[in-house]
Amino acid sequence: MVISHGTLTFPAAHLGTARTMLSGLAAQTRSEPGCLSYLVSENLETPGAFIISEQWENMEAMQTHLSLPGVGEAVKQVTEMGVDDLTITAWEAGQATKIM
Amino acid sequence: MVISHGTLTFPAAHLGTARTMLSGLAAQTRSEPGCLSYLVSENLETPGAFIISEQWENMEAMQTHLSLPGVGEAVKQVTEMGVDDLTITAWEAGQATKIM
Repeated sequence: MVISHGTLTFPAAHLGTARTMLSGLAAQTRSEPGCLSYLVSENLETPGAFIISEQWENMEAMQTHLSLPGVGEAVKQVTEMGVDDLTITAWEAGQATKIM
Repeated sequence: MVISHGTLTFPAAHLGTARTMLSGLAAQTRSEPGCLSYLVSENLETPGAFIISEQWENMEAMQTHLSLPGVGEAVKQVTEMGVDDLTITAWEAGQATKIM
């Protein structure tokens, strides 16, 4: 399994558009092959800062997702809205511990 | 490194308290030994559903955190507010891929 953690911050003027766009991206992505979880959320301490929490069956599935035209278009759109801090890191998940 | 993903949902009546409590927990936890990142966020698609995204140097540091009295108290508080779906899973992080 692959776990991915992404962060990005939108200028205040685009927050409404950002929330709608990210929600749509999440719903769409969860329907893609190999996607186990894809959640978009807003940082409680920093309004306008968003977190993308992903789980994929494997890195191939995630890379297939990233190569979709819609994903490239989304990256282009957020850049045009002034996002300049987009980061996404993925890890191969090792041993899992269920805490609660 | 250890990556942890937690989720919990608060009843609408407690959302204000929940947001304040989780923000305080995040600020406190980031000061603890071995904590690399601790972000609390609200699911864009499901208001009242929160995500806790954690990164720790190792499982020992995370377990030390979990054993602190304040953490037990926080779990007790959210339970008393009606949260009945708290989940936390931690994984040993394997190979990292910087996507963006």
